[in-house]
Amino acid sequence: MSERLFARMAVIGCGLIGSSVIRAARAKDIVGEVAVADVSPAVLDRVRALGFADTVTADAAEAARHADLVVLAAPPLAIGQIAAEVARKLKPGAIVTDVGSVKTVVAEAFAASLPSGVFAIPGHPIAGTEESGPDAGYATLFAHRWTILTPQPRQDEPYRAAVARLTAFWEALGANVELMDERHHDLVLAVTSHLPHLIAYNIVGTAADLEEVTRGEVIKYSAGGFRDFTRIAASDPIMWRDVFLANKDAVLEILGRFTEDLQALSRAIRWGEGDKLHELFTRTREIRRGVIEAGQETPEPDFGRHHDEG
Amino acid sequence: MSERLFARMAVIGCGLIGSSVIRAARAKDIVGEVAVADVSPAVLDRVRALGFADTVTADAAEAARHADLVVLAAPPLAIGQIAAEVARKLKPGAIVTDVGSVKTVVAEAFAASLPSGVFAIPGHPIAGTEESGPDAGYATLFAHRWTILTPQPRQDEPYRAAVARLTAFWEALGANVELMDERHHDLVLAVTSHLPHLIAYNIVGTAADLEEVTRGEVIKYSAGGFRDFTRIAASDPIMWRDVFLANKDAVLEILGRFTEDLQALSRAIRWGEGDKLHELFTRTREIRRGVIEAGQETPEPDFGRHHDEG
Repeated sequence: MSERLFARMAVIGCGLIGSSVIRAARAKDIVGEVAVADVSPAVLDRVRALGFADTVTADAAEAARHADLVVLAAPPLAIGQIAAEVARKLKPGAIVTDVGSVKTVVAEAFAASLPSGVFAIPGHPIAGTEESGPDAGYATLFAHRWTILTPQPRQDEPYRAAVARLTAFWEALGANVELMDERHHDLVLAVTSHLPHLIAYNIVGTAADLEEVTRGEVIKYSAGGFRDFTRIAASDPIMWRDVFLANKDAVLEILGRFTEDLQALSRAIRWGEGDKLHELFTRTREIRRGVIEAGQETPEPDFGRHHDEG
Repeated sequence: MSERLFARMAVIGCGLIGSSVIRAARAKDIVGEVAVADVSPAVLDRVRALGFADTVTADAAEAARHADLVVLAAPPLAIGQIAAEVARKLKPGAIVTDVGSVKTVVAEAFAASLPSGVFAIPGHPIAGTEESGPDAGYATLFAHRWTILTPQPRQDEPYRAAVARLTAFWEALGANVELMDERHHDLVLAVTSHLPHLIAYNIVGTAADLEEVTRGEVIKYSAGGFRDFTRIAASDPIMWRDVFLANKDAVLEILGRFTEDLQALSRAIRWGEGDKLHELFTRTREIRRGVIEAGQETPEPDFGRHHDEG
């Protein structure tokens, strides 16, 4: 554990993910110094109080200076500006990565702003909770989860070594690492993450706007399924606004499929076609089994919600 | 605890809910004898092995005979037939209730089949997990959850006393009890439970049918939100087929609203209207806060999924 992967790591944007990266890297002792920058003075105060960073500043370029690893942990649409800001002070040979949910826009931003002497490797740890801010992070957030890296189509040895080093970093944090083309990443995530969030936001909004059913009733009787959607629909609003705007094409394509299927389901209900409903409801159980077998979920029913009850 | 509410309880249909009612009633010692009937020989074998019933039979009418409380815990569309079956052997003064997610069809089935000498009180405990069968139940399933009773519009004293007795029964199991008109119940549940399940089944089906994204990828990267939908979409297929067929009108009405809102959201994404997205995503957070404040959810992020990880 004394073999540190990076002498100095800079984390620009210290919310749930950024602070978890730091906590996990500290816990595994794989980085030396840690510098943090954030645009929010309140976040900077919390980071100082939490005490996990050596340098805490509002100046992203200053934090990134001298760093061997620069992690941009800001909302997708802010990445372009931050990359441009830190570019001029980056150390030659530094690895620059991010943790955002959309990768095509990040690949474009990196290509447009970063100097050729650094190694730009967009990344995305698929982990999170509905909480936000530096207090919400924890060291085991990435354990047994997947982190996808979307390297540039470069085959030179120094770049490949940088990808291997960043892979080792994420693996040290407990993640499984997969390499993927950024466009494919954005389509996969549109299905497994972006559409689920869009649907959850939408259903919670629909429920809040009904006239015949009060908001109090919706909340009171939410244990029948609705509460699971409220959890997802409580995710960070700015980050998710950016995700949908940044991954517009893939999200609209998947949403089109979803709507088409929903119309067919609606029609089956209207015409009392029980067999069609039963067929779908049986098929979806298999996917659940796959999720549990793949270790991406606990099989425990109700997530142990009843365990805290008398 | 020695004041037993019912000398003999019959539970017809012994799955997750039926077996939880028995376990909870046993734990609180509020019933004397327990008789169980089920159409499935496999379920009957499990019930015998679990040992929580005094009588185990395939004959619903036989189980219901002599019972003071008869709980029909079968899928919504099976209730009519079971009510007709047990009707002729019911003890005068017995309370007959059910636990289904749709109440208008049950009110109609009870009115059509049950003799006037028994007290028919449809009911619905809003609790459950995605698991099915007698092994899946547990005694604290109803604790701090709501149970809705939808009594007939009768004001006579014996009926009111029966409603009070059934209310006391559910309260003894740990539930909060609310009385409601059956049509309103069906609309409220269409929002808080039926639509969420329909959406979850649909999105899992859509994801399984894509060509460009493999099923393996969907499962592998499900931690980004999709896995929460797979949990709901693993619920009992027959029960849910029945729910949608039995509550068709309310489900289609709420689904219409949902689809309308989703189209507006889709349009906002297409035209890059970030403010509209941000406004919705902020509003939905308040509902989440309400759900937690109402004690219908734990505030714990990620349901403690990371707790079992090293």
